[in-house]
Order: sequence, then C-alpha cells, then structure tokens
Amino acid sequence: MSQKFESLSRIKNKGYHSLVMSAEEAVKKIPSGVNVGMSGFTGSGYPKEIPVALAARIREERAQNRPFKIGVWTGASTAPELDGALAEVDGIEMRLPYQSDPTCRKKINSGKMQYMDIHLSHVAQHAWFGFYGKLNIAVIEVAGIREDGSLIPAGSVGNNKTWIDQADQVIIEVNYALSEKLDGMHDIYYGTALPPHRKPIPIVEVADRIGQPYYHCPAEKIIAIVETHGTDRVNVFTEPDAASKKIAEHILNFLRDEVNKGVLPPNLLPIQSGVGNIANAVMAGLNEGDFDNLTSYTEVIQDGMLNMIKSGKLVKVSATSLSLSPAGLEELNKNIDFYRERIVLRTQEISNHPEVVRRLGVIAINGMVEADIYGNVNSTHVMGSDIINGIGGSGDFARNGFLCFFVRPSIAKGGDISGIVPMVSHVDHTEHDSQILVTEQGLADLRGLSPRQRAERIIEHCAHPDYRAELRSYFERACAENSGHTPHILSEALSWHDRFNKTGSMKITAAGAEQVAASKDSETN
Amino acid sequence: MSQKFESLSRIKNKGYHSLVMSAEEAVKKIPSGVNVGMSGFTGSGYPKEIPVALAARIREERAQNRPFKIGVWTGASTAPELDGALAEVDGIEMRLPYQSDPTCRKKINSGKMQYMDIHLSHVAQHAWFGFYGKLNIAVIEVAGIREDGSLIPAGSVGNNKTWIDQADQVIIEVNYALSEKLDGMHDIYYGTALPPHRKPIPIVEVADRIGQPYYHCPAEKIIAIVETHGTDRVNVFTEPDAASKKIAEHILNFLRDEVNKGVLPPNLLPIQSGVGNIANAVMAGLNEGDFDNLTSYTEVIQDGMLNMIKSGKLVKVSATSLSLSPAGLEELNKNIDFYRERIVLRTQEISNHPEVVRRLGVIAINGMVEADIYGNVNSTHVMGSDIINGIGGSGDFARNGFLCFFVRPSIAKGGDISGIVPMVSHVDHTEHDSQILVTEQGLADLRGLSPRQRAERIIEHCAHPDYRAELRSYFERACAENSGHTPHILSEALSWHDRFNKTGSMKITAAGAEQVAASKDSETN
Repeated sequence: MSQKFESLSRIKNKGYHSLVMSAEEAVKKIPSGVNVGMSGFTGSGYPKEIPVALAARIREERAQNRPFKIGVWTGASTAPELDGALAEVDGIEMRLPYQSDPTCRKKINSGKMQYMDIHLSHVAQHAWFGFYGKLNIAVIEVAGIREDGSLIPAGSVGNNKTWIDQADQVIIEVNYALSEKLDGMHDIYYGTALPPHRKPIPIVEVADRIGQPYYHCPAEKIIAIVETHGTDRVNVFTEPDAASKKIAEHILNFLRDEVNKGVLPPNLLPIQSGVGNIANAVMAGLNEGDFDNLTSYTEVIQDGMLNMIKSGKLVKVSATSLSLSPAGLEELNKNIDFYRERIVLRTQEISNHPEVVRRLGVIAINGMVEADIYGNVNSTHVMGSDIINGIGGSGDFARNGFLCFFVRPSIAKGGDISGIVPMVSHVDHTEHDSQILVTEQGLADLRGLSPRQRAERIIEHCAHPDYRAELRSYFERACAENSGHTPHILSEALSWHDRFNKTGSMKITAAGAEQVAASKDSETN
Repeated sequence: MSQKFESLSRIKNKGYHSLVMSAEEAVKKIPSGVNVGMSGFTGSGYPKEIPVALAARIREERAQNRPFKIGVWTGASTAPELDGALAEVDGIEMRLPYQSDPTCRKKINSGKMQYMDIHLSHVAQHAWFGFYGKLNIAVIEVAGIREDGSLIPAGSVGNNKTWIDQADQVIIEVNYALSEKLDGMHDIYYGTALPPHRKPIPIVEVADRIGQPYYHCPAEKIIAIVETHGTDRVNVFTEPDAASKKIAEHILNFLRDEVNKGVLPPNLLPIQSGVGNIANAVMAGLNEGDFDNLTSYTEVIQDGMLNMIKSGKLVKVSATSLSLSPAGLEELNKNIDFYRERIVLRTQEISNHPEVVRRLGVIAINGMVEADIYGNVNSTHVMGSDIINGIGGSGDFARNGFLCFFVRPSIAKGGDISGIVPMVSHVDHTEHDSQILVTEQGLADLRGLSPRQRAERIIEHCAHPDYRAELRSYFERACAENSGHTPHILSEALSWHDRFNKTGSMKITAAGAEQVAASKDSETN
C-alpha cells in the first residue's frame, strides 16, 4: 500500500484516490459483449495494465465455459500487451480501425476476429454518429490527473477525446513512466460538433493551437483508475537500406525540381510521411539536403523527424503520436521544452482531417504493397485476401494532399514478388488518387496522364527490369485484344498473384515465357 | 450587321464591342496544340458556337494535311456540339475531367483520345498548381457582360472562374437565349489561394453566399466575343421506372429509420444526388414523403429538385449547374425571383469541396456500374476496360459525406449482367468509402461490418435471386479455400466479367452450374 500512496502523486484530484485499484479489480468492471475504446496509436499511449489483466480474465472465463468477447476500438496500432494479449485468448469480437499485430492478423485472416479497416480521419466522427454501435467503456492512458479532474494526455492522442466523450464509463491508466513534461504539448480540439452544427476548423498553419492541452472527463464516468510504470512498445530505429535511400533520393530530386519550376515554395509544403524504413530515409535525406524551414503535418513522429527538429531543418510538426525508439524518447525528455515549442499533438480526426490536409497542401508520402500499371494502389492486402495492417491515414493524406507519393521497392522476396503488377489484387487508393509512384528503379510522375500514358511511364520508371518485359507484354496485348480506356485482359489480370499463390513466385515459367514471346512475335509480324 | 448591333445589348461595356466577331473568325485565334478550358457542366452552360466552328476548322486543316489537336478541359459533361463535334474530327488530344458523349467515349476506348477521369473537386486546384500543363485559352459562355467588364454566369459555373484566371487568353460567348434574370443566382468564390496561403471556406449552411455573382476577367485577356442564341442540351425528364421507385423506397425507409433512431435530424441533412432516373425517383419520393425543410448540397439541379423547391419541401439548394428539361427551364424562368432566393450556383471546387461536404454532413446518393460482395464500387468502367463516363463528383461526396449510398438495379441486359459481382472489374470507391448499397432487391447497410459480414449482407439484400446462389458459392469457397480478411479466389474473381465478354452473359453455363453444385456438395458432406 505504501507504494501505491506514494504513487498517487500524479492524481492531484484527491476525490479520485478512492477509485485507484489494481488492474485485476478494474477488469471485473468490464463485462463480455461491450465495446471498449482504448487509447493507443503506433505503439504509443496504449493502456499497459488493463488489456493484459482482461486477457487473463477472459482466459479464466473461457476455462469456466463462459464465452467472453469485446469490441476493441483504438486510435491505430498498439502493442503485444494489448492486441496480442487479447487476440491470443480470442477475446476480440470486432477490432477497429487499424492494427499491426501478428496474432491479431492471424485471427483476422482466419475469420476468427472481425476487423474494420477505416480511414483514420473517419473513426471519431463515425463513432459519434453511432455507426459502430454503442461505445460502452473507454480505457485511456494518461500522464496524470489534474486537480480539476482534467487529464494530461500521454504519448499519443488518437481517438481518446471521442472515446471519453462517447463511453458511458471510463477507466484511466495513469502512467508514471511518462515524462510529466509532456504537459502542454497536446492540443485537444473541443470545437467539433454533429452536423448541421459544424464550424470551420480554424487551423491555417501547421502548429496552430485551437484547443486545450487536456481531456475533459466527467468525474461520474470514471469507474476505475489504475497506476502503471509500463513503457511504450519499443520501436527500433533501423538505418535505411540501399533501396530506401534510392527511393528517398528520387523523391528529393523531384521536390527540388518542383521548387525550381515554382510549383512548390522553397521550404516545400507540410510533409506527411508514413511509418517505417523508407519514411526515415526520406527524413534523413531532407535532413542532409538543402531545404530549410520545413514543416510537417502528419500522424506520427518517429526518430527521423526528431532529428530534423533538432537540426533546425524542421521548424514545426503536427501529429497525433510520438513513436520513438528508447534513444529518441531520451532525447525528447532531455530537451522537452525545446520540442514542446515545435510539436503539437492533436486528436487524429484533426491530424488527418481532409479539411486541414487540403488547406495546408500537405505533401503525402506513403508506403504501398503494390501498384498496378494504371496507378491503382494496394496498401493493405497480400495476394488479394490476407490483410497485413490497414489503410491507416494514407487515404486521408493521399486524396487531399497537394502532392501524393506512393513508394516501395520494385521487388520483394528475393525477386519473386513484383511491386508493379498488371492489376492490383486489392484497391485502397484508386487511379484518381495516386499521383507519383516511386521505387528504387525510379519515379513515375502520373500527373496529367491518361491511363495508357500512365502504364508506359510506370512500367518504364518503376518496374524492376526482371518484370518490365512481361508487364509491357501484358499492356500491349491488352491494348491490342481488348482496347478500352484502361485496357485489361481479365482472364490474365490477376494471374501474377495466382501464380505466386501456386508456385511461390510471380515469375512466369519457361512455358509461360514462351507464350509471352510468341504473343510478342505475333504482334510484330 | 444590323442584327449584330441589335444584339450588343448584353455587352454593356462598350469598349468590348470591337471584340465581337463570328465564331469562324474567333476560332482562327485558337492554334493547334493548345489547352482550352471550356465552360459546361452536365449539358449546361457550354459554348454553343466556338466548338462547332473549331471542329469545322480542324476538318479543313486536316484536309490540307495539317494535324490539329487541342486539349479540352471543362467542368463536366457537355453536349454533341462540343464533345461530339470535336471528337468526331479527332480534334482532342487530352480530355478532362469528365465526359458522357458517345463519340468521345468511342475515341477514348479505342485509344485515339487521351482522357483523365478526375474527382471534380480536384480539377480547379490541380489546374492552378500546373499539374495538367499550361492552360492557354478559356472559352466561356456567359449571360452578359456588365459595364465594369464583369461577366454574368450562365446555367453552370463549373471551373469557369479558374479557366478565366489561369488562361492567357479568353473567348467569351454571350448567350441571348439565357434568362437575364439568372443575374444574382451565382456565388463565385474568390477566396481560394495556393497553399500555404489558404483559409477556411466560410460556408456553414447550404446556401451561404461567400463570393460575388460575377466572374472577373481582365479586359486585356479577352481576344474575341461571340454572340449566340443556342440553347443548352435538351434533358428529357423521364418518369422513374419500377426498379428506380423501389430503390427510392428503400432509401426513404432507411432515412426514416435513422431519423427515428436519432441518427439524423427530422429534416435530414443536405442531400447530394447523382444525375439520372434513380436520383429523380428519390427526389419524387422525398417530395411525396413526410420530410420537411429539406436542403441539398449537390452538383446538379434537375427537374426533380426544382419540383421539390416549388412544393416547399426543399428550402435551400447549392449546386454548380442547372440541368433542366425545357419544361423545367420554363418553370425556372417564370418564377426566377422565387428560385433565386433558394438556389446558389457555385464553382465546382466549392460545390464539391471535401471541407464543406464533410462539415455540412451531406447525404450522398450516387449511381454505380457494379459493386462487389465486399462493397468495392465501380462507377466508371464496363468489364474492366471500357469507360462509360467518369467518376464525376461521386468520390468527393461519398468519401466526405455523413452517409454514402451507392445504387443501381440488381441486374441489367435482361439479366445477363449482375450488378453485384465477386470482384469489381475496376474500383472507383473502395470498401473504406462505401456505406450503404441499394438495389431494387433491398438495402445493405454496411456500417460497422467487417468484409465477411458485408459479403453476407450484400448477397442477401442486394443481389438478384438469379445470382445469389452463385455469389454465395464463390464467397463460401473463397473462405474455405483461401481464407483471409477479404477472401478471394483470384483465378475466379473476375470470371463473371470474362464470361460476359466471351458468352454475352455472366450466367454460368450448365457445365459451370454442375461445378458449382459439386463444390457445394463437397462442402456439406
């Protein structure tokens, strides 16, 4: 008990002290069948104690032959202690709006767990509209509770404001491992409303503050407070590989050209960048490059961006989550006053809002699973059926940004998968939304092009040489045999994926190669 | 000459009288190779004289062995006198952003004409950004020129403001067939800017006026003025057929339920409705129904909406085009003061703007070519390759609206085409954007559902009974054979379209039916 009383230091409102309990006690208040809105975005700011304790409870109930499942709504991806633990015990009926957990993925793809993959800017409003059903309980990690009962947000904001507003009951996790100096970095916008009562969102510059640093939560909603020292998911920062560096180089050269042509201002426009290796390579490239006074309006701040803030290249950043390596986190905490002036953490409906993304003219850079020769982009599925993670915010930024890049290496699995295919096996971004495709082979600027012109450019600039002839053969035969605005041979369009499923490679066999060669001959004769 | 001087009555700025000339003279000022931005949206407000005269000139040049092609940019679809005439003489190099002309369509699908199919809210900004190349000449129909040189817009606004701003030279067509009383109905917003200088668009109610009734055009840009009495494309209003009425009934019942559940206010939210038979049926249903004080934030005002304004059911409408039958036009002109108070015609970047569409919470109702069992929607292509018209504004409204319906009859071509297929042959709206599918068979509310749950509901509620068993067979076998979040059998996913291409019907043959039956047996055994 002494340890607990010591720890109450972050719960400044003493009226709340009686609500402090263990996670095991708290999860008794979560019945089967409810929808639970949890904090968490890109492995940051998720509850550390409740999901694990809940998984244990579900396992026990199951052992007693009592079925127990809940709906789990979050900001975006979380960590093994949340998604992994609950998926492992088959405790999730419906998961939304994004996940990246291996156990979750397996359950979803086997049909044991339902999953809705949603534009991240849509989630808060759709929950408020009631489109996902009733939200019963919110479980939110915070850095502290203030005297007036307002809550100091943790390392991510995500949908927390909406979960607290919409849920009947709220469980708080107060995390003592978080720096108390996060206080003041967040901007929680309480100006949203249901139509027809909505007003313009008054952001005109990346770091405009339009809300308050804290969540409001009516005291009567809080049913439990759990204390924790758990740390966020460890994100290891890996040095960019050769392909990523090459992709970054193509993007930087392109941006330089656009500045020279007067299309972009010298300090570019606010950059949005997906998570991962290529994103970090682009940031590293920008950090070493000749652009100054850069800004970013994005979802997630990774180490690459932190480095750019430190170097002074990046002057303002808006995001909804800090997803840092331990070294990055240490740097942040060490110089928190410096970073707090330059970073704004918002709710994800605002960090990704179409209105603001379009107004600011964001330069959107997102990864993809594959693109087809007409520029349709698959961001989510392997071979049409199996989901990897989800669309996340890529659609919010791609559709509404000033420029929209989709990037990936031209091949994968030692060359057995081509990143450019005749027809994508799943579409997340249509030809109407993709502008610029980039692989280590090159960059295809699709602006102002018809589908046939796009095909020529994508095959020439982005496809791996091992697949270029076959793509060209497909395109030429489709034009000759079927014609059309977007020529396809439907019996062959998905054959590359089908071949991979059957043979482990998209590469055509000797027999297939002969066929391609024969068809090419007949065209030239 | 006397006739011409008589007609100068609508050109109040006398300094412009010297620029008046015949269309034949005017088109001599349009060289080959330029991009021309023309007015016109849904057969309304397109130039009547210049395109025809230009087509004649192109034919002559061609006869002299001089190639002649231009880029043609518009608001949306025009008429045979524009798209038809120029396509007929192969005079268009690149067409954007939307067309619905049979000759154009044929040239595009045969690869003779390039075409870019663009979200209508994107066009003006992308042209301004320079993404489509330089705009050389604008050809704009107006209802008159005022003393100060400002231009009174015609029956549609479309991209005219941007074409005038961006073009080096402007040709004006003054149309004396238009009612002069249109003056004051338009709201041309001049508050747009290039990022990073953009501000919120200050519309908070459907009919808010935020601009001015006229286009500005610097006098020095105008190189020719042509007078015309040509009338807009005749749109015949057809009575809704049985399927359309049934679809409308499903939608109205659904909306009533949502009001009863408190999801929608009693007067709903602003309605957007695509063009055509089903749209008119929905409007007719609303006009006879029990909803009052309705509003609309849409692209096009058709007869159905005019009737609703007249009856008092519809109190305010925002659009970018009036697309009326002769009887509708007569009614409008007769009671123009009444309608001017209730109708605002905007630039299409504002009528379709994601920011405003989301803020107002638009109820989007759009037609589709086909949907698949997971809710992906094809709005543009027949059997994957051939384009029909284009995506138009459907994506602007579907992605950003409060509710999003996609509608079509469950079958076409006497039953040989199913509107619900295993996998769509082209994707314009992804599973992330479609919410409610409606056929005459029923309505599938997909909100809050995973892909597998969607499949069950779409097959059950929307598919025609003739295709239901085959769709279910596909879905069940895909789940069993491949599993996945979105189970597909890639070698079979597009086989319905392929079969239609080869046999003229999506229906499977006796042999195929046996195969389906056999696979179903093996599942139940």
